[in-house]
Amino acid sequence: MELRTKNPHFRETILKHLERQEFMKHIGCRLTVIEVGHVEAVIDLDVMHQQQIGLVHGGVTATIADVAAGFAGFTLVGPDEHTVTAEIKVSYFAKGQGSRLRAVGRVVKPGRSLHFCEADVYCMDDAGVETLIARATTTMAVIRP
Amino acid sequence: MELRTKNPHFRETILKHLERQEFMKHIGCRLTVIEVGHVEAVIDLDVMHQQQIGLVHGGVTATIADVAAGFAGFTLVGPDEHTVTAEIKVSYFAKGQGSRLRAVGRVVKPGRSLHFCEADVYCMDDAGVETLIARATTTMAVIRP
Amino acid sequence: MELRTKNPHFRETILKHLERQEFMKHIGCRLTVIEVGHVEAVIDLDVMHQQQIGLVHGGVTATIADVAAGFAGFTLVGPDEHTVTAEIKVSYFAKGQGSRLRAVGRVVKPGRSLHFCEADVYCMDDAGVETLIARATTTMAVIRP
Amino acid sequence: MELRTKNPHFRETILKHLERQEFMKHIGCRLTVIEVGHVEAVIDLDVMHQQQIGLVHGGVTATIADVAAGFAGFTLVGPDEHTVTAEIKVSYFAKGQGSRLRAVGRVVKPGRSLHFCEADVYCMDDAGVETLIARATTTMAVIRP
Repeated sequence: MELRTKNPHFRETILKHLERQEFMKHIGCRLTVIEVGHVEAVIDLDVMHQQQIGLVHGGVTATIADVAAGFAGFTLVGPDEHTVTAEIKVSYFAKGQGSRLRAVGRVVKPGRSLHFCEADVYCMDDAGVETLIARATTTMAVIRP
Repeated sequence: MELRTKNPHFRETILKHLERQEFMKHIGCRLTVIEVGHVEAVIDLDVMHQQQIGLVHGGVTATIADVAAGFAGFTLVGPDEHTVTAEIKVSYFAKGQGSRLRAVGRVVKPGRSLHFCEADVYCMDDAGVETLIARATTTMAVIRP
Repeated sequence: MELRTKNPHFRETILKHLERQEFMKHIGCRLTVIEVGHVEAVIDLDVMHQQQIGLVHGGVTATIADVAAGFAGFTLVGPDEHTVTAEIKVSYFAKGQGSRLRAVGRVVKPGRSLHFCEADVYCMDDAGVETLIARATTTMAVIRP
Repeated sequence: MELRTKNPHFRETILKHLERQEFMKHIGCRLTVIEVGHVEAVIDLDVMHQQQIGLVHGGVTATIADVAAGFAGFTLVGPDEHTVTAEIKVSYFAKGQGSRLRAVGRVVKPGRSLHFCEADVYCMDDAGVETLIARATTTMAVIRP
């Protein structure tokens, strides 16, 4: 499916938003790819991202998935519109253990008032090998002024 | 439905786990209620929890929901068992804006190998009024040694 | 939360729709309660509703949940609006075995363009005892002409 | 990911199950592909599958998705094991209108006690063109004797 954006300056719009994305900064989440309907996010893993037995906390995985899927949907909307996550489901396929988390977000089905987006979350181990550890499916609502 | 625990010392077990829950500490999430099949978590909201327009980041809401629902399921399992989130769905009912986030987690249907749990997330505004801003439904898998 | 309808004749509107609800007729699904934000559906179980080992097919449970939750949302919208299911998640708590299926649908959070609805599905055994066998959470989109 | 079955006679096992799949028969749902971790189902659409405005009922779409994803998971388990749907989420991308529904089910991540499966549902219009109308993600629990 060919995706079109209503905001030719979507990259600038997103970069401006990121300046004030306090929670993303707090957990070290940054965007590495910003294309129409396709956004990637990365977190370099540290002790702060761990749950009690040293694995990546599920909340970190859910957050990076929401960020990648959400901004993928956001690349499509007009300059005065924005998007909110109506719902997200995250399935956890494998434990997160390693040095880096990467989420690949994509718009699966754009719509007038809803964008269906997904994100795959990979965990890179110390040998540089990535494993798919989670998949998220979301409904993003388009908010008009 | 009456819920039973296989670990009479579930509180101590959970409190010991919390000492090493780095991500919960990093985002200021603590447990305030630990009962059989019922756990509550709280986050005092700060700038670090915000997304670009000053609202609570969806990842914070998903995390506190996962924590409350997950530990609710964990209160049931045996001393040498633990639980992992197989999947979680979070529906976002309203924007999070205020001073405190509270998640109420409960076991809806316990099972031999799966516990179905839920969490309601409330946001308290500056006047002390709580609004239900999200609901999560999860499948928790019981892991045996 | 107090729920309001934009269609004072919602019952008549729904009853008219039911006349042409071919799939509901085909599987013997009828509505027994139609209130603002609250709809119940019932199926008298027969051999046709079974999967290979004689239990209620998950598709039957998903259908009655969608019907109850969907019509609950539909009670709120205006005479020239309708609703569609954007997404539904069904958690299966217990096997369906018995004589009757009943789904209780409710609007959890109404909105301008989205209604969040839920449905609990109960199975009545031959002794007349109902067991909660499934819970569904849905996002219903309001469609305007 | 390479998928392995624990039942070399999975096709025969499934075909035997289908003989007693009353609900699938009742709604005209049949399997057209049965491979390891990959099952397809088809429904030739008729009036009985419609909701009130002549589109495919969401319950039909949810059922065919559950069948395809569920049997995909079932191809992996041992001769004395079976699978049940712990939960399924269906996102509805487009209205179902046409002559045939086809669901492609696959195992995304197999496990010891849980298989994560998905299904894409396509609707073929009268010109023979297929549109992706829904996607389902499921958690399938493996049941041991």
